[in-house]
Amino acid sequence: MSLEFNHVTLAQRVLFGAGQAATNLKNEVDRLGVNRVMVIAGGHEAELARTVAGDIEVAVWHDDVVMHVPVETADKARSVATDNDIDLLVSLGGGSTTGLAKAIALTTGLPIISVPTTYAGSEATNVWGLTEDARKTTGTDDRVLPLTVIYDSELTLSLPVEMSVASGLNGMAHCIDSLWAPGADPINAAMAAEGIRALSSGLPMIVAQPQGIQGRDEVLYGAYLAALSFASAGSGLHHKICHVLGGTFNLPHAQTHATVLPYVLAFNAPFAPEAEKRAAAAFGTDTALEGLQALRSAVDAPKCLADYGFTAGGVPEAVAIILEKLPVNNPREVTADNLTTLLTAALHGDDPASLS
Amino acid sequence: MSLEFNHVTLAQRVLFGAGQAATNLKNEVDRLGVNRVMVIAGGHEAELARTVAGDIEVAVWHDDVVMHVPVETADKARSVATDNDIDLLVSLGGGSTTGLAKAIALTTGLPIISVPTTYAGSEATNVWGLTEDARKTTGTDDRVLPLTVIYDSELTLSLPVEMSVASGLNGMAHCIDSLWAPGADPINAAMAAEGIRALSSGLPMIVAQPQGIQGRDEVLYGAYLAALSFASAGSGLHHKICHVLGGTFNLPHAQTHATVLPYVLAFNAPFAPEAEKRAAAAFGTDTALEGLQALRSAVDAPKCLADYGFTAGGVPEAVAIILEKLPVNNPREVTADNLTTLLTAALHGDDPASLS
Repeated sequence: MSLEFNHVTLAQRVLFGAGQAATNLKNEVDRLGVNRVMVIAGGHEAELARTVAGDIEVAVWHDDVVMHVPVETADKARSVATDNDIDLLVSLGGGSTTGLAKAIALTTGLPIISVPTTYAGSEATNVWGLTEDARKTTGTDDRVLPLTVIYDSELTLSLPVEMSVASGLNGMAHCIDSLWAPGADPINAAMAAEGIRALSSGLPMIVAQPQGIQGRDEVLYGAYLAALSFASAGSGLHHKICHVLGGTFNLPHAQTHATVLPYVLAFNAPFAPEAEKRAAAAFGTDTALEGLQALRSAVDAPKCLADYGFTAGGVPEAVAIILEKLPVNNPREVTADNLTTLLTAALHGDDPASLS
Repeated sequence: MSLEFNHVTLAQRVLFGAGQAATNLKNEVDRLGVNRVMVIAGGHEAELARTVAGDIEVAVWHDDVVMHVPVETADKARSVATDNDIDLLVSLGGGSTTGLAKAIALTTGLPIISVPTTYAGSEATNVWGLTEDARKTTGTDDRVLPLTVIYDSELTLSLPVEMSVASGLNGMAHCIDSLWAPGADPINAAMAAEGIRALSSGLPMIVAQPQGIQGRDEVLYGAYLAALSFASAGSGLHHKICHVLGGTFNLPHAQTHATVLPYVLAFNAPFAPEAEKRAAAAFGTDTALEGLQALRSAVDAPKCLADYGFTAGGVPEAVAIILEKLPVNNPREVTADNLTTLLTAALHGDDPASLS
């Protein structure tokens, strides 16, 4: 069997260090030789931004950040950037803040330095999203990829444990699903495996010691790799299933991902032995499922979809919709029968091993 | 202990597939919308290039390729490119061919599509080199990084087994040394580990079946990762030692690398437990040294420096020179004593495990 893949690596500089954000930002601004900086940070992060950007000259502090980047918010921010002759955007915050900077970059081409405070991962991708009339449009454009990402896990210490775990498991789903997603390739897989290793090592540390830096470092680093590999590999079976459960049945995003993941892993693993082996090695366990379940147990992850309002009555409709959205190249053939079995097991929280 | 690193990822598109070079080149030329292509390929590769570039329009076929890229050769090629209004360079060949394309790109900014036919790895880096009056100058510049690399392992089938093994083990040295080199970071390490996995899987296949595609695929892919991780991490202890043995004692490059590597691995491993563990996992063996030695035995790698003209009398001088060139951050403190022990063991081909 010969090796065949196309892989696009995007250019990005990552500066990673706890407590280093202010210094790294100052050095990076100096290196770029820019002098009209717009800092984007909303809510309580606006205050945090004053500290992180304390050593640089800032032309505009912009705190009008709204979830899911409404077009009006983007347009306002674009005008601010243009009216003030901005030559660098610095975003500090979660996905919506990074998203606003990207919306500005999309039309202006301005470079972004992104300082993430969550594990959302948007900073590592060329994906943008805008919301208009409650509809989200997304696209990819290399202009929105932040030039530099400054990771400082001290900035994530205020993320509550529960949210950290949910977000970290979401990253884990990105890593695992990217092993068999449409754009899967060995380079993505190497990144994803490194993400699995980091997340499975870091998440239990955050639970045990929420203010400890080591766990925060590992999860922040793992979330970066999760975003990288997912952006490159695309949505696999897991994400297609969760998308339907969230969209049609309104199940909560993070919990749905955390619950469904072991079932998709058990479902695909026997048909994707290389991916399984790679994930197992990354977990440091005999099988990938064993590693994932040990992690889920250590962080007390959600166990069944029934707890979030899904019912047996919904399974047939979910199956029908998912079957229409299947990724072309899932390693195991997905049928109404085996998908029903998968969803029913996830509904009740049955042992996923039964699917292998 | 907190995680701290700076990592620069360079943008590049990799199209990998045996027998796909002509198609991938055609598609890439179409995608870029260029129409004045200069194909650079010398010697017997000039003929190969006629086939690979058979589907595209070529403005200039340039076959004046000389080892180590003499400045005069570079200047001539630059004039050819300028005089012919070239808008894309396509290089097909080994390190010197890629190097000539890079020399043109350095002064003209022209984009490069690189089609490597060896495991040299230059196509994956932003490093250029030129030779003037027998002196080599090197530097880094993002303009010389090929935009796209087209890997087609069928083009490597004519590489003799012995040269393939030497070059592959050189790649292995890049991977292992990058685990503790000055620019070592977890992203480099993940790439290096994937390179170790691919090279250790592929090299024995090439020895067993030189015309088989699978082994060629794995080694070509592994060589790419080796170049990536080495270019980012820089020279570690292994490369400093080999540089002195080659430069001052005129020992042959490939054999020196292949012989010295297990000794440096055994020397550093106890002081770099994470690196050791990662390498061991990549080899799929209990210890990294075990994996490396099994591979060396499978490919019948060279065993001692004495076979290449090094003598006990040279050890003190080598030690003195190496001590002046040590990488700042080697995990184990290097002293005249332990370096003498290392070199003496490598001289005689003693069991490297004695150094751990």
